[in-house]
Amino acid sequence: MSGFDRERARSLMARAGMDALVLFQPENFRYATGQPGGVATMWRKAGGAIAVVPSDPFDAIIAIVPDLSAPNIRRLAPDIDVREHPIWVDCVDLSSLPGGMPTPDRVTAAYREQRLIHPRPETFDIKRVLSLLRAALYEMGMGSARVGADFSFLPVADFEFIKAELPQIGWIDGSDVIRRLRAIKSPPEIAHLRTASTLAEAGLRRMMTEVRSGASVKALSEAWRDGVRGAVEVAGISNFTGSWDFIAIGPDPWGASGVVERGSIIKADVGCLVSGYSSDGARTFSFGRPSSVARDIFDVLSAAFDVGLEAIRPGATFGAVHAAILGEMRAAGYAEYHRGHFGHGVGASVGSEEWPFISANNDDVIQPGMVLAMETPFYAKGVGALMIEDQLLVTENGIEVMNALPREMIDLA
Amino acid sequence: MSGFDRERARSLMARAGMDALVLFQPENFRYATGQPGGVATMWRKAGGAIAVVPSDPFDAIIAIVPDLSAPNIRRLAPDIDVREHPIWVDCVDLSSLPGGMPTPDRVTAAYREQRLIHPRPETFDIKRVLSLLRAALYEMGMGSARVGADFSFLPVADFEFIKAELPQIGWIDGSDVIRRLRAIKSPPEIAHLRTASTLAEAGLRRMMTEVRSGASVKALSEAWRDGVRGAVEVAGISNFTGSWDFIAIGPDPWGASGVVERGSIIKADVGCLVSGYSSDGARTFSFGRPSSVARDIFDVLSAAFDVGLEAIRPGATFGAVHAAILGEMRAAGYAEYHRGHFGHGVGASVGSEEWPFISANNDDVIQPGMVLAMETPFYAKGVGALMIEDQLLVTENGIEVMNALPREMIDLA
Repeated sequence: MSGFDRERARSLMARAGMDALVLFQPENFRYATGQPGGVATMWRKAGGAIAVVPSDPFDAIIAIVPDLSAPNIRRLAPDIDVREHPIWVDCVDLSSLPGGMPTPDRVTAAYREQRLIHPRPETFDIKRVLSLLRAALYEMGMGSARVGADFSFLPVADFEFIKAELPQIGWIDGSDVIRRLRAIKSPPEIAHLRTASTLAEAGLRRMMTEVRSGASVKALSEAWRDGVRGAVEVAGISNFTGSWDFIAIGPDPWGASGVVERGSIIKADVGCLVSGYSSDGARTFSFGRPSSVARDIFDVLSAAFDVGLEAIRPGATFGAVHAAILGEMRAAGYAEYHRGHFGHGVGASVGSEEWPFISANNDDVIQPGMVLAMETPFYAKGVGALMIEDQLLVTENGIEVMNALPREMIDLA
Repeated sequence: MSGFDRERARSLMARAGMDALVLFQPENFRYATGQPGGVATMWRKAGGAIAVVPSDPFDAIIAIVPDLSAPNIRRLAPDIDVREHPIWVDCVDLSSLPGGMPTPDRVTAAYREQRLIHPRPETFDIKRVLSLLRAALYEMGMGSARVGADFSFLPVADFEFIKAELPQIGWIDGSDVIRRLRAIKSPPEIAHLRTASTLAEAGLRRMMTEVRSGASVKALSEAWRDGVRGAVEVAGISNFTGSWDFIAIGPDPWGASGVVERGSIIKADVGCLVSGYSSDGARTFSFGRPSSVARDIFDVLSAAFDVGLEAIRPGATFGAVHAAILGEMRAAGYAEYHRGHFGHGVGASVGSEEWPFISANNDDVIQPGMVLAMETPFYAKGVGALMIEDQLLVTENGIEVMNALPREMIDLA
């Protein structure tokens, strides 16, 4: 299901003077249609799958997709207007083979009856794809419209070709419109991120039981993944699509060679993906009593995190939250500590960190429906990685924290 | 280690009238430097990491990278000229803390002594990155050079900014040069792909033992991954970086819901990644005697594969191989069968299929050092997926097949 809010899209497009969005990035295609664009998007070139979102919410979203994906998209997203282009993969329906002939002749007869398109292109035929796009825009009276494309993705080589094939279109950058749309989550998107966050914490609970003297980063990473897998099984989650983990043990904040010893600190920054939506969260543990420096810094990070939790609410700017957290660190005497952002949006894109960012002087306003990861990290060689990160849903009146694990540096010895 | 052949790069750049390559795509950065570009490449925007490859092989490759990654790259690739730009992540060295003060003051003293750059940018500072690029080009006397960038990656929005910041540079499309470079593998790249292929086959051997009545796609996929994991452990492979599998059972060539029954065909198209290099290979099995239609088609696919093996050799065109395979299918009576390509390059890029393709009328010439996956697939609803795929190294005199598993449709009942 798509999380696309057509009314917000209309309003953002109107403000940007745009008649339609034409989305080439695979992640944006999926966002607009609720469906993956299929195998021809693997190269991340423009045209494997394209979504056209007209400004008028009463006009259907158009999806230009490989013929291989078209039947599935039609079935799963009946409100999408699907146009198809042939790709390199040939597939014939032999469910009801004509009888009485040798196999090759029966297969040939089936091909002819099904009027399958060939020859097939090497990968996909961008000229044909763009002729479908031209026809779609023309049908909607947008033959010479102002169209916002995702310039933050669109490769230069492809854009040159697109401009030559659709010379009447006034192409403008739609990246800001699409990132603003994506930043506010729909109820299904929020549900995915909540499930993902819960799975990641189940992994952490399992990992905590494996922290013992001599345990390696690899062992803790495996324990974390086992915990996630177990939770996926128990809850019968069918749309778990991946996971990632950055675990550090001991005084090297980045190395993967740390081993748990008495006094070690253990940082686990982890995420699970549900339908492509990645959670993000982190906890820091110790094994025995950590150094006083580690404890001192962690106490201040905790206080700064609490200050952030107070500051982060609908109507506040992202910059105000950054200032509040950094101010707390400075007030505690960490006069030179800095950090480019104390958190970010989460969702289903190429990186685990998405726009908007909790960054200095960022005047963008925090809005209900945003799901944000807020983090207070401190990386120090000789001490290690110290970090607290929660995933938060911004509500009408405040925030809802999606994490349940205590934020303290729990001693696992 | 980088697989970069500076002499070939010089020759390809000379032919394209280029003074240098400036590579923005994360995969190309890694190819040119042998090292990952680091965390700031997660958004796939231009500037997280940039590699500059001068045409003259005596000029060092320059890497513009996050300060977080710089020490590692300097250590692991001492021949690379590393320039660094600050990213959002702050890290201080507290290995030798000044004593006799409270923690915050000692930390502040360490920051000041290490002259750490701040404030830090929200993510990375593209203006600063481009000023490093400008300085690097200027130092080499390339202040107004003709520079090839990877236009098949470079996002339009970033390129507009780059052109404005470096207006003297004559930007041209370097995509063809870089893909031609990447298509010929160095010995370490060939070794990665060979290892990856061996791991994938170990997975298939394990999977074969789990094929029994009632086995699901999920069960076979898990068995395959178990087999891969086991082989990784046994061989002590430290650079195994991932895997993928597309397994189909029974008459639906695409669905994941197939279950092994008497007469089922089972197709496994699988790959393992070693240092990011992905193998690609496929086998088809049966459980008991498959339908006569499946047997007939598979026999012809096998013959066509053998014809392809004869045709694929240095000096031949890719188009000739496509024609030979398709010709064999047609000669056997499959008059309407088609397929956009019967194989492709393999390596470390965004998709498992890379340029060049074994496609119709492709006049590009097969060259020693290429590693190719050759495949003869037949997808038919009601019958299933039938496919043979091997990974091949093109040698001076012919080819070397990297697969050891027999290509027949082995009956696993």
